[in-house]
Amino acid sequence: MSESSTPKHRLGPQRNPEIDAAVLAATRALLIENGYAGVSIDAIAKRANVGRPTIYRRWPSKAHIVHEAVYPVLDFESAPDFELDGTVAEDVTRLIEGAVALFGDPATRAAAPGLMYESRTDDDLRKVLVTDQLERIRAALALRIQQATDSGELRAGVDADAVLDIVAGASIFALSVRDVADSQRLAASLVDVVLHGILAPDP
Amino acid sequence: MSESSTPKHRLGPQRNPEIDAAVLAATRALLIENGYAGVSIDAIAKRANVGRPTIYRRWPSKAHIVHEAVYPVLDFESAPDFELDGTVAEDVTRLIEGAVALFGDPATRAAAPGLMYESRTDDDLRKVLVTDQLERIRAALALRIQQATDSGELRAGVDADAVLDIVAGASIFALSVRDVADSQRLAASLVDVVLHGILAPDP
Repeated sequence: MSESSTPKHRLGPQRNPEIDAAVLAATRALLIENGYAGVSIDAIAKRANVGRPTIYRRWPSKAHIVHEAVYPVLDFESAPDFELDGTVAEDVTRLIEGAVALFGDPATRAAAPGLMYESRTDDDLRKVLVTDQLERIRAALALRIQQATDSGELRAGVDADAVLDIVAGASIFALSVRDVADSQRLAASLVDVVLHGILAPDP
Repeated sequence: MSESSTPKHRLGPQRNPEIDAAVLAATRALLIENGYAGVSIDAIAKRANVGRPTIYRRWPSKAHIVHEAVYPVLDFESAPDFELDGTVAEDVTRLIEGAVALFGDPATRAAAPGLMYESRTDDDLRKVLVTDQLERIRAALALRIQQATDSGELRAGVDADAVLDIVAGASIFALSVRDVADSQRLAASLVDVVLHGILAPDP
């Protein structure tokens, strides 16, 4: 099923961007109103005023639609936009602010735990929703951390994977589980701990 | 429905601990074999060799059973076991190691995203599964961070909630989403970033 890992390109020129946009907008509205459990292909079809077959020709499952509706930024083929002429502190700050903005969107708050759950139940889905995109971000972050370690900006031995787990995991936990309202404060607090740690510097 | 927030005490002396243990063991086995989606009251009843009504007299839903099966440590009424005569670095290290051990258990890896998802769909469930227990841990951590800030062990202004989001969120993301195998390295990396941050100290 290699087709399902590139759903956006399956139909090529036949795809009508207006229908895609209507389906994705309907999905976001349903997520915000009824949560992940309240989204179904039927409900999306009705809300977007399109037929079920039209939807199934474009996406293999509800989870794929939700993923595309809430994680558009991850659809880029490119790595995260690290400005290699800036400092790593600026890059990590921007990464955390971006994650908090992404996972703090009302539709994404509703969707993230559902997508995490569904990705554990289906290996093909897991590949599309998690592995491919996460691997790209992970590789880019590992490279940036390595460069900044070599240049002496970072302490030796910082684990880039742990930074990724903190950026994504803490954001999802705060925004989807604890339902934190003040995302700006959340981002600032995460940046503070990740850059400087909690311990007072040696006197 | 105040009863459902204290399911363990609803039936008092009538409860048979052997049946409870059989149901919880069956639930853990099903989680490991089939994931959260593969757990149902029917499957638990069959595996534990008890009737469905026996289960429903004890727990209001599958999610409540799964929660009790994978988060036994959170059932204590007490706060986390901070040793107030130790250093805060030791306490935070133990907190992170405890979280990684808890969320790294095979049944918990399967259960955590499903419980996060279900907790967003049902306010009563959310209160039982998330709010009450998390609030206790959150309050204890906030107190410990405040004490260590006052004593000068920590930098001023460390946000205890961000530490909680990192400890729980990064653990769940690494163990349930990325399926990290080496929990020991994960715990050490998280401790390293949380205590010391990633930036090199000022020269």
